[in-house]
Amino acid sequence: MQTLPLCATVREVGLRDGLQSIGTIVPTEHKCAWVRAAHAAGLREIEVGSFVPARRLPQLADTAEVLREAKTLPGLSVSVLIPNLQGAERALELEADLMILPLSASAAHSLANLRKTPDEVVAEMARIRAARDASGRRTLIEGGVGTAFGCTIQGEVRPAEVLRLLQALLDAGADRVSLADTVGYADPASVSRLFEQALKIAGDRLCGAHFHDTRGLALANVVAALQLGITRFDASLGGIGGCPHAPGASGNAATEDLVFLLESMGVDTGIDIHALLALRAQLVRWIEGEPTHGTLWRAGLPKTFRPARACT
Amino acid sequence: MQTLPLCATVREVGLRDGLQSIGTIVPTEHKCAWVRAAHAAGLREIEVGSFVPARRLPQLADTAEVLREAKTLPGLSVSVLIPNLQGAERALELEADLMILPLSASAAHSLANLRKTPDEVVAEMARIRAARDASGRRTLIEGGVGTAFGCTIQGEVRPAEVLRLLQALLDAGADRVSLADTVGYADPASVSRLFEQALKIAGDRLCGAHFHDTRGLALANVVAALQLGITRFDASLGGIGGCPHAPGASGNAATEDLVFLLESMGVDTGIDIHALLALRAQLVRWIEGEPTHGTLWRAGLPKTFRPARACT
Repeated sequence: MQTLPLCATVREVGLRDGLQSIGTIVPTEHKCAWVRAAHAAGLREIEVGSFVPARRLPQLADTAEVLREAKTLPGLSVSVLIPNLQGAERALELEADLMILPLSASAAHSLANLRKTPDEVVAEMARIRAARDASGRRTLIEGGVGTAFGCTIQGEVRPAEVLRLLQALLDAGADRVSLADTVGYADPASVSRLFEQALKIAGDRLCGAHFHDTRGLALANVVAALQLGITRFDASLGGIGGCPHAPGASGNAATEDLVFLLESMGVDTGIDIHALLALRAQLVRWIEGEPTHGTLWRAGLPKTFRPARACT
Repeated sequence: MQTLPLCATVREVGLRDGLQSIGTIVPTEHKCAWVRAAHAAGLREIEVGSFVPARRLPQLADTAEVLREAKTLPGLSVSVLIPNLQGAERALELEADLMILPLSASAAHSLANLRKTPDEVVAEMARIRAARDASGRRTLIEGGVGTAFGCTIQGEVRPAEVLRLLQALLDAGADRVSLADTVGYADPASVSRLFEQALKIAGDRLCGAHFHDTRGLALANVVAALQLGITRFDASLGGIGGCPHAPGASGNAATEDLVFLLESMGVDTGIDIHALLALRAQLVRWIEGEPTHGTLWRAGLPKTFRPARACT
């Protein structure tokens, strides 16, 4: 295996991608406790919610409060999903560190999920960039290209279309872009092929990967991307989450399993896995009755486990 | 990602490694139906049981009958686990195509599981080789080095000790050797390191890998080995199995998920995944109430799934 990166960033997205897909509405105080405990465990990037209308996702109606709390924690990059310019304006007003505009490379999924064509989302990116620049805020803008490996509605999504949209988002003013396997269709070979091409387009501005474990391949896909030098991965504690508009899709990569994978391979995440497992146990109590995933919590760490050497 | 092999062999071990770890005793007729259906689905290597005393593993007491049935199927390589010379004599008598002598590289695990030191197992290999040669049978002998990545009892297992035992087994007359992560301690980086060194010792005689999914890394580990040219992988339908002497260890790689991974990556297995999923559903009825694993059965195949091009 070629030399792996010495460190990688795990971005917790359970508070957004996870909680939006389950019925339970987690109270704000538990969300804030989650963010504080994740930060204490060493996580330095957390997606705290989404600025969608509260009637569409009541689970995330308190995103502003959670964001405000998260902003008090030192060294934490606080990100938020934004569906459009209106969401971006709230993110700017609240000084989020990062706002992520999702774009679905599948036209069918895009219409079902965002009620816009992919190119309409690109046009929105341009408006968001203009608003950010006019605001004087330092909030970064990420374009997240989803259903990048296929879609449960339309089936195939051509890599050429994914790459075109990646370029279009950058041209429209995204500071950086990422690729997401929203429905768990990717495999290590397709990850390797698409990320290799995407790196040619975006270089360092290709900032990360978001894999779902729908068909058990999320961690193998992470390794494939890591081998190309990708060092930021989204994950949900307890593997909660999915996409309500993609039937059968459920389960982000579980944060605790991802951290275990990376640390075992000698890739430093800066995260205390024991603290993470304790937080997972707490989360399970908060969302009692909801399905959770992952394997490490059940088996425990190997006797031989040593965290990776800390990056300097 | 470097060029992957065009095809790989999945060896079903659920009838041995799977059934030995669960309480349910599956009747011989169901085991035979399992073997026939697996063969019909395209599997060409099946481990049908173990020649251990029936009082120790009553679940596998009918190994001889299952072996006889399996031997009637065209093109099927029928293998059996043997703990010692006595077991080898039965395998030779019944003309198994392959007999696998397990050796645990962890001395502590070896004593608990096999009641022998690793070097006593090496000595047994020499006796087994002599018996095979004297018998005139064509039964191949595989030395399977387990706990190769660590052990739940003694913790660390030094790679140098694993490699020494691999060499010793070959010197004692094994036709081929394999490496097993009996307790789910391996990660893609450690797999890559150990298999790279093992290939230097054994070359083509390093015939395969056996990964447990105890901590969710089995498929990522398969990819790491595949990248080095390893093309035979053990798996259990429904991910059943584990090691009764290794607390916490449970779940082989699930055959159906492994086949999905390989075919998705363009690596031909010759296996019809739909037939395999149907057989999995049947197995779940046969072992009702026992835990099963895997993800593909729940999510279903991607709309975009195409089997790999058949190897010629």
